[in-house]
Amino acid sequence: MKRDALVFYSPVDDPTAWRDALASELPDLDFRIDPDVGDPAEINYALAWLPPKGFFRRFSNLKLLTNLGAGVDALLNRDDLVPVPITRLSDPGMVSLMTSYVIFAVTRYARDMHIFERAKRRGQWHYVHPRPLAEIKVCVLGLGELGAHAAKSLADMGYDVRGWSRTLKTIPGVECHAGRGSLETLLGDCEIFVSMLPATNDTQALLGARELALMPAGAKFINVSRSAVVDEAALVAALRSGAIGEATLDVFGAEPLPPEHPYWALDNVFITPHLASITVPALAVRDVAESIRRVRRGEPPLHQVDPQRGY
Amino acid sequence: MKRDALVFYSPVDDPTAWRDALASELPDLDFRIDPDVGDPAEINYALAWLPPKGFFRRFSNLKLLTNLGAGVDALLNRDDLVPVPITRLSDPGMVSLMTSYVIFAVTRYARDMHIFERAKRRGQWHYVHPRPLAEIKVCVLGLGELGAHAAKSLADMGYDVRGWSRTLKTIPGVECHAGRGSLETLLGDCEIFVSMLPATNDTQALLGARELALMPAGAKFINVSRSAVVDEAALVAALRSGAIGEATLDVFGAEPLPPEHPYWALDNVFITPHLASITVPALAVRDVAESIRRVRRGEPPLHQVDPQRGY
Repeated sequence: MKRDALVFYSPVDDPTAWRDALASELPDLDFRIDPDVGDPAEINYALAWLPPKGFFRRFSNLKLLTNLGAGVDALLNRDDLVPVPITRLSDPGMVSLMTSYVIFAVTRYARDMHIFERAKRRGQWHYVHPRPLAEIKVCVLGLGELGAHAAKSLADMGYDVRGWSRTLKTIPGVECHAGRGSLETLLGDCEIFVSMLPATNDTQALLGARELALMPAGAKFINVSRSAVVDEAALVAALRSGAIGEATLDVFGAEPLPPEHPYWALDNVFITPHLASITVPALAVRDVAESIRRVRRGEPPLHQVDPQRGY
Repeated sequence: MKRDALVFYSPVDDPTAWRDALASELPDLDFRIDPDVGDPAEINYALAWLPPKGFFRRFSNLKLLTNLGAGVDALLNRDDLVPVPITRLSDPGMVSLMTSYVIFAVTRYARDMHIFERAKRRGQWHYVHPRPLAEIKVCVLGLGELGAHAAKSLADMGYDVRGWSRTLKTIPGVECHAGRGSLETLLGDCEIFVSMLPATNDTQALLGARELALMPAGAKFINVSRSAVVDEAALVAALRSGAIGEATLDVFGAEPLPPEHPYWALDNVFITPHLASITVPALAVRDVAESIRRVRRGEPPLHQVDPQRGY
């Protein structure tokens, strides 16, 4: 008898946690962890993060591909995929992790914590009078599910938050803008910038030397989405000159970030190893299982990605 | 003609900002900045933070003393004060600053940021798999106006928050406890502790060697209220042994913290120069002015402190 099977692949996620979580929702699903995939013709679903080139070529009966993260850019434009629906995760655990990272990174600058870190290492009591949060203008670039929640949470804390996206959004407490023209105004008007943009054709190197130069001297830049939205060489130059005062970066053109990369030597760069947000199986599994149920019934899955738009 | 005057004293706050803010509320009030106090008999109100010993002895007509901060312990048990009402500030700007500090310090540990700070300095890409915030138990000790708001905000972010206070409080999303017996259970059950306790006879060295030893190995301790609530020698010993894994400290027995203090040499201690929360004149001035109006009318001021209780 032909089985109804799912293949799992991830270089970072725990397969056991996902198998157990999915078993509680879909006990009849055959969960197979790459490379132990059995008969590839039985694989109807894939749950994958950053699979190697050619990974999908074996699975000719694939009906649904679920991306084990928020950014799907690595799954688009592959030559090994039959045309199947691609879904992204929508996971309350992922949202709260991402928001906690953004709040941390913004508040570290807003409350001068990067200055106190350095003063501590010098053994120096260095007082800087705090500024009211309402006077600190934070710009969130990208207002998808993750960006919108982070922007609203920053506004709830008391920051003066501006949001920017391709199409105009409405977020309580956040002054929202859309389109290239308003981007230039925003870049000149804020002091802390958070990139939560997806990697698409439209956002490729959206922040280049010209855009970085529009930011006020000493601006802070936080990138938790995709490195491709920034011109990395321009950012390094701006951080070296102090035009950009500080950066917190979770995403890089090459990961792990190579030891010779100039970011390592820059004292004004804070580096985290691409974990601003991860999927929490126990919370994300409900939507993953529901999409499989829908595909079994011949219906479209939840949170389907538009390959043309890129998210 | 005898004037109705206020004396201002603070080693850190900006007198001009306070004079301007109060002038907008009480244009007839004569605002005098120490040492230019004029005729001391005309001083009816004091707005002061950490005034030197004997400061109040000159002001025999004082009718109201407003503390320029949340903790009033330094104003109690002085021998230079006539018995006048003492009020503390209640300031939405102070609340949001304090909450931003607490969220920063808790999230720095919850998201392993202290580990990434050190890995960055070593030039090392060091991955630590994130834990869901709901699995991280945070204990807020002290649930006054500042503590309650911080506890609720941490719960809203997704942390598992326990609160402890002298009398039982009710805070949405926070599991509240009261009394010494429950304190011991809480100390053993949480992993991040935030002291937001006032300095009173009851809280003096409340956290001694015995209480610190009840915390799980490697626990994180954050103190944003008063250094007197902790036995400092016991904390240093616990941080040296690793029994307490990390500490973020904003308050110290002597400030500025002396250069020879052992905290400076401990890599697992994060030091900030007593600024977790400060008063924002533009926001705090309304209640300060209203208290003066009430005292002029012979009524009790707002936010009056009970000298017996200590807060």
